[in-house]
Amino acid sequence: MSNILNFGPLRRVVVAGGTHGDEMSGVYLVRHWIRDATELRRKTVTAEPFLANPVAVEKGARYIDQDLNRSFEERNLTAPDSENDSYEERRAREINQHYGPRGSASACDFVIDLHNTTANMGSTILIFTPDDHLAMHLSNYLQIHCVDSSSPCRVIVAREMTREPNSLLTIGKHGIALEVGPQPQGVVKADILNRMRALVKCCLDFMDLYNQGAEFPAFEMEAYEVLERVDYPRDDAGHPLAVIHSKLQDKDFLPVKRGDPIFQMLSGQEVVYDGNVTVYPLFINEAAYYEKKVAFILTKRVISAVPAVHVNQE
Amino acid sequence: MSNILNFGPLRRVVVAGGTHGDEMSGVYLVRHWIRDATELRRKTVTAEPFLANPVAVEKGARYIDQDLNRSFEERNLTAPDSENDSYEERRAREINQHYGPRGSASACDFVIDLHNTTANMGSTILIFTPDDHLAMHLSNYLQIHCVDSSSPCRVIVAREMTREPNSLLTIGKHGIALEVGPQPQGVVKADILNRMRALVKCCLDFMDLYNQGAEFPAFEMEAYEVLERVDYPRDDAGHPLAVIHSKLQDKDFLPVKRGDPIFQMLSGQEVVYDGNVTVYPLFINEAAYYEKKVAFILTKRVISAVPAVHVNQE
Repeated sequence: MSNILNFGPLRRVVVAGGTHGDEMSGVYLVRHWIRDATELRRKTVTAEPFLANPVAVEKGARYIDQDLNRSFEERNLTAPDSENDSYEERRAREINQHYGPRGSASACDFVIDLHNTTANMGSTILIFTPDDHLAMHLSNYLQIHCVDSSSPCRVIVAREMTREPNSLLTIGKHGIALEVGPQPQGVVKADILNRMRALVKCCLDFMDLYNQGAEFPAFEMEAYEVLERVDYPRDDAGHPLAVIHSKLQDKDFLPVKRGDPIFQMLSGQEVVYDGNVTVYPLFINEAAYYEKKVAFILTKRVISAVPAVHVNQE
Repeated sequence: MSNILNFGPLRRVVVAGGTHGDEMSGVYLVRHWIRDATELRRKTVTAEPFLANPVAVEKGARYIDQDLNRSFEERNLTAPDSENDSYEERRAREINQHYGPRGSASACDFVIDLHNTTANMGSTILIFTPDDHLAMHLSNYLQIHCVDSSSPCRVIVAREMTREPNSLLTIGKHGIALEVGPQPQGVVKADILNRMRALVKCCLDFMDLYNQGAEFPAFEMEAYEVLERVDYPRDDAGHPLAVIHSKLQDKDFLPVKRGDPIFQMLSGQEVVYDGNVTVYPLFINEAAYYEKKVAFILTKRVISAVPAVHVNQE
């Protein structure tokens, strides 16, 4: 076959939990795997678990000074340590030294970054590098082999994040973030934890097959791409005047068209969507986005062709 | 009739939101009522809305230095201001000066304190003073007149809290806390907000009837009383080794008997309840209780006789 992409084998794989310290499934799983790594071992690879923001985890907070998952900008990673650094700026450099450096030959081969959301996002895979075809094959493998009728695996390609990479998973040669929800911040729910655990185990199964020379044929991938962020209606002081409409709540990934209700004003009226194109809202009512003034994110569905991949055994 | 309790009319009623700054239904409702108090007006009384911990609300945190709703101990309320005060100690004194002082003739007549929980507690009424019979009649009125098939109103009498009163609602002559859930911290969900709004409106309807001389006959009240708090199994570093079992999650107020699963260990085993008496767990998987090392609270059901009440028009 003429069009097969070759990447190297996946020898060094890391699994990060607690990148946001109050997203608890990853925190609990990583702590468990540090005690007992059996589940992370495969014939050709053993994943390395680590807590990305241990100080925020201990505090039960998303972060200490700033969002760690926006702290991996090149400008920060290459800066010298300074007394004025935030905790997360320093921690991002440490992580990059240990598991990167990003873009170098010694960077780890694959990063799996574990996240939770308060939105009803089920099992969502985020890819921050639109040409990471290996991550796309892994996603496709999860969609086929990690089936849960109530929670299909969907893929978001966060194309905009690639302009200036700043997330943890970009320090590896390949990577995905898993967003599993709904789960409140600071809470761990058995069903969400079990789902995330199954996804990680399935990721490692894929990697082991890939390392052993399995060829993964070309396929067409359906994914969601960000169009815009939508804020709540607000009063002059900046306080929201509305909440997510009950008909939109928990409807992540379902189509919204002109006239569909999106907000319920405290004063009683409904606000409807007035766009002309059908959109797919995601991260509906995500707790962490209140401070970012984001009620939900509108996306479109895209189909992209992903070439076959096969390991290059060097 | 011989056994009718008489209390004064309810002239000054306050509705507190944001006592915990990340419990959002009360925050949104109080902000709305400060803009437009129409819903809080009745013929004989108009409730006064206020944000109890506005600094924590702005920060999106439960509290700044310590739990405001444990800061109303007499020792603190009567202490002089000091540079070493926590924010909440000072704020508790301010609130007590404004809406109390507790135990004085000028204390407000009724406090409604609005809370949310991440647990599946539906519409729960907390009474912190076991002889607050007026609060019990109000609860009974809500149970009859504010019906929601998916969310019956249940009452917890927190007898233990009365040894040393330290909660906000104890500054009034009468009071209840409303705990409505499940709702993640830092998130407002339309259904939970609407439910809390209906409950507050129904409270004011009761107060208006009471003020106008309606007699509320004696009744038997079913309530839940705290037996003990149950912590998670932990490792030597103090980190939980288990999560709430999926068969217990969301089962607040339902009976648990010997042999029922309560925890799922990360290592795979189940932990079962080994007590001899049937118990009713509450606040199962409440986010705020992780730091208190409480996985859930075991309660028993009790029935108590509540005498008739009638306003004493002075």
